Amino acid sequence: MLKEAIYHRPKDNYAYACTNGDLHIRLRSKRDDLQSVSLIFGDPYHWEEGKWINEEQKLIKTGSDQLFDYWFTSVTPPFRRLKYGFSLSDEVETIYYTEKGFMSERPSDTRDCFAFPFINSIDIFNAPSWVKDTVWYQIFPERFGNGNQANDPEGTLEWGSAEPNPTNFFGGDIEGVINHIDYLKELGITGIYFTPIFKAHSNHKYDTIDYLEVDPQFGDNETFKRLVKVCHENGIKIMLDAVFNHSGFYFPQFQDVLENGDQSRFKDWFHTREFPLKTEPMPNYDTFAFTPFMPKLNTENHEVKEYLLEVGRYWVREFDIDGWRLDVANEVDHAFWREFRQEVKKIKPDLYILGEIWHDSMPWLRGDQFDAVMNYPFTTNILNLFAKKSISNKEFIENMVTVLHMYPKNVNEVAFNLVGSHDTPRILTECDEDFRKVKLIYAIMLTFIGTPCIYYGDEIGISGDQDPGCRKCMEWDESKQNRDLFDHIKKLIQLRYDHPLLANEGELTFIPSDYHETCIAYTKSNGTNSFFVIVNTEDKEVNYPLPFNLKGKKIRNVWTNEEFAAESNELTVNLSGFGFSILEF
Amino acid sequence: MLKEAIYHRPKDNYAYACTNGDLHIRLRSKRDDLQSVSLIFGDPYHWEEGKWINEEQKLIKTGSDQLFDYWFTSVTPPFRRLKYGFSLSDEVETIYYTEKGFMSERPSDTRDCFAFPFINSIDIFNAPSWVKDTVWYQIFPERFGNGNQANDPEGTLEWGSAEPNPTNFFGGDIEGVINHIDYLKELGITGIYFTPIFKAHSNHKYDTIDYLEVDPQFGDNETFKRLVKVCHENGIKIMLDAVFNHSGFYFPQFQDVLENGDQSRFKDWFHTREFPLKTEPMPNYDTFAFTPFMPKLNTENHEVKEYLLEVGRYWVREFDIDGWRLDVANEVDHAFWREFRQEVKKIKPDLYILGEIWHDSMPWLRGDQFDAVMNYPFTTNILNLFAKKSISNKEFIENMVTVLHMYPKNVNEVAFNLVGSHDTPRILTECDEDFRKVKLIYAIMLTFIGTPCIYYGDEIGISGDQDPGCRKCMEWDESKQNRDLFDHIKKLIQLRYDHPLLANEGELTFIPSDYHETCIAYTKSNGTNSFFVIVNTEDKEVNYPLPFNLKGKKIRNVWTNEEFAAESNELTVNLSGFGFSILEF
Repeated sequence: MLKEAIYHRPKDNYAYACTNGDLHIRLRSKRDDLQSVSLIFGDPYHWEEGKWINEEQKLIKTGSDQLFDYWFTSVTPPFRRLKYGFSLSDEVETIYYTEKGFMSERPSDTRDCFAFPFINSIDIFNAPSWVKDTVWYQIFPERFGNGNQANDPEGTLEWGSAEPNPTNFFGGDIEGVINHIDYLKELGITGIYFTPIFKAHSNHKYDTIDYLEVDPQFGDNETFKRLVKVCHENGIKIMLDAVFNHSGFYFPQFQDVLENGDQSRFKDWFHTREFPLKTEPMPNYDTFAFTPFMPKLNTENHEVKEYLLEVGRYWVREFDIDGWRLDVANEVDHAFWREFRQEVKKIKPDLYILGEIWHDSMPWLRGDQFDAVMNYPFTTNILNLFAKKSISNKEFIENMVTVLHMYPKNVNEVAFNLVGSHDTPRILTECDEDFRKVKLIYAIMLTFIGTPCIYYGDEIGISGDQDPGCRKCMEWDESKQNRDLFDHIKKLIQLRYDHPLLANEGELTFIPSDYHETCIAYTKSNGTNSFFVIVNTEDKEVNYPLPFNLKGKKIRNVWTNEEFAAESNELTVNLSGFGFSILEF
Repeated sequence: MLKEAIYHRPKDNYAYACTNGDLHIRLRSKRDDLQSVSLIFGDPYHWEEGKWINEEQKLIKTGSDQLFDYWFTSVTPPFRRLKYGFSLSDEVETIYYTEKGFMSERPSDTRDCFAFPFINSIDIFNAPSWVKDTVWYQIFPERFGNGNQANDPEGTLEWGSAEPNPTNFFGGDIEGVINHIDYLKELGITGIYFTPIFKAHSNHKYDTIDYLEVDPQFGDNETFKRLVKVCHENGIKIMLDAVFNHSGFYFPQFQDVLENGDQSRFKDWFHTREFPLKTEPMPNYDTFAFTPFMPKLNTENHEVKEYLLEVGRYWVREFDIDGWRLDVANEVDHAFWREFRQEVKKIKPDLYILGEIWHDSMPWLRGDQFDAVMNYPFTTNILNLFAKKSISNKEFIENMVTVLHMYPKNVNEVAFNLVGSHDTPRILTECDEDFRKVKLIYAIMLTFIGTPCIYYGDEIGISGDQDPGCRKCMEWDESKQNRDLFDHIKKLIQLRYDHPLLANEGELTFIPSDYHETCIAYTKSNGTNSFFVIVNTEDKEVNYPLPFNLKGKKIRNVWTNEEFAAESNELTVNLSGFGFSILEF
């Protein structure tokens, strides 16, 4: 047994509580090393005649990545306290593992054990329940629809008449979104994530001038209020982008510091290194990246904190928004985000807080800060398999298993899954304009754990390279839209709503990659009912023999709506090149 | 190379910031597997001509435990942001390790790297600077000194006339402590940790009746104010015990619920499962352990939280105490402790917050909750070696290395090290009354990383079994005190003050256990100056050859105050059975 590979440390993704009082326990071991793992557990204070009273329960293997197997079980401590250890068996031996290390005897002293000392409900990760059933749609407001030409900035180009560049404008606005609610309803999305809409200088609006005012190019606060109302009436949630890491260069408070230096009453609002401020050759104040136009806000300063917290509260309180997406969330202090969460959830307890973090985000997902992060590891993995072809099916599965085990299950359910955004090339372009691949990718995203997001226009086949190319105007001429792709995604969205198991109700388990040469497959199951998703990752027709004995069972292909009774225990599914199948049984 | 053994995950004990802007990075590998480890690091946004600009820096090995080597380095990111990976070399190969796993190529894409996205000062673990130079003394007030017989409870026994039992009283009080300040000064301690002093029913006072009043058996609030003043005048800090997990049975708010059931205005102050409340056969409300006399407080209830926070503030604001020790801290919610920290530190920024946690405490030591926990793993390890003889010197060293690498270095410096308390048998009793062992144990504790605490009376050889035996009356008859032990500990305390390297200024490095059969040895070094502590763990005289070439160097035995120049490169130190030596060079 390879002891060095065994890992468990309470809290985070290895031991965490759920809102129903369950405690989830995971353990990691070397891949294919252990035959069985059991949890030995009991209340820390439950002793009888000098002996600690404990029980034993088997863990199940929930996945394997390149190096490790992951094991899982769930217990419900009657007094909300738990001490525990593990029994580990391979072909040769059974040993025990506790906080104090490995031992040959079953743990009998609770002081050696791992501890989950008390399940306090306030500490439990608790994302809003609506999120896991939501399908998001990301809108870059300058490019979705021009509903009001009166608010177009000077020099606005004709809609779609030019390639997007860092400085041009096409007149997109909030009225343009309101005008297309029917389109969004038809597609079936139930949440819109807007990149920034507040008054700013650039076309992307990540350089805020006024956090309390809708950019006049997009309309005004009343227009936005109307949008929220219309969306809510149509069952669509609204999430705004909070750019709190930095302001824009033209933010009046920063302008005041530029002008008045250390005499400015806002001099502590930023991270200045000397006065007067200068931007060349390098800004002598902290910025986002090294961009002088985005001075970093000092969120540890009391005034700044109060200002931004009020911004957070204002749009929830006055406009009833449903979520905040936090830009560059990882560079702002944890203390700020803890207070932010408390303040906005006081007004709307089921508000969704989504952080932009591209790397391992466990420290932000412990229940005290965010509900979710943008799941870029998911994005990367999809792109590497289908677009860049830099990984094998085996690696794809292993990477997904790694990501799914990096976080608690209840965190995974609200992870913001995306395959493209205003910060990445369009998925169609990434796939070399192969629509079959795009369809396959959406089939995965819309049957996966997490909450999927479609970047505006991806559903009708808009192409585009890295920013600014990925920010083209939405195509409203139906004859130029790829309606086949639209219908494909619409159908997948509907299937996801119709079958909660395809969303987040069930467990996702991959079929080992060595089972089939070209197909990736996974079950989504709640123990009683199961869905089985098979995707053919290559451009050739294949037969996929089902890895289950379903004889006598009724099987339904939910994609074609065909139903048949399995008459043999060897069933095969035929898939075209880059084809897929979704079966229910 | 054993990849399965390699571990790093940013934040916690593997990557953490220091108040001076340094970032400490650690990595774990299989013991004796790697030859060298380097950090590859740079600012996430520092790219030139499409290439990420990074540097490389070697890590040093800071210790080995049973299975693993631990590697360490420190960097100071100029813009407070870091992306990084590792280069790992053994005899065969060099591979690279990032957040995305192992790769054969040096990392060039920051998106693969580990991230420490921004060092925000408010998030940095920042314990009060005075703590690491403090030597604590724990007082159980009912048993330290009776300074005022007028406040003795009915039935008080004559001082020291009987064995302590769970219900008897001997009249110890606060006046009794004031009367003995000179004794404490002579010993040299600079902090007193009091077990509870608030009004309660029992002799241990862990069952609070009134959190805002000193127990009348101990004096009154004015007496306590006088004590703090006298202590502060004598350079002694005061830490009180906050019992916030549970109240006492006779806490008026609980009595109200007992009486009025669900009609009580305090019914939500506790975790009640049904009404009316009953204590038999099991309490139908949550308690500490299963003790009906300690009903668990509902710290998620707003009123309870405000009440306890005001208790926290009150004793700091009105009495100027220097620390709070938090009883059963691990069973109270994290959210409460975060708010507690903010509230008390607002009044006194350098207040010390010490949690009682017996197990792995990383989730409470991230900078947002506690400054330290009671270091019971240290206690256990010392006892297992010297008293229970259940571990070898090798295991002792390995266990200490494990504990030292479980937490950040700045956390270790303020860990509350103890070898006995009101909750454990006396150290003399644990050592079968062998004073040589007790002396040796204190030599280790007072030259170790952390902040040491002496349990009242241990310094003069009081014996006693597990509670209540360990709560005997302090012996004030000098002829019955072991003055030899007293002088020994006094001298060690003085040495620790005289040489900050013996406290927390330097790095502690163990000499590998296979170097010598019966001695454990470690250096405390800042790179320029070093101390070398050797302890003989067996009852036989030995010669210990120094594992350094010190030829030409001046060596001072700081215990005997002998000084000599090393004339050869092979020096040997003679140690009696259970003897020790502390050298400076």
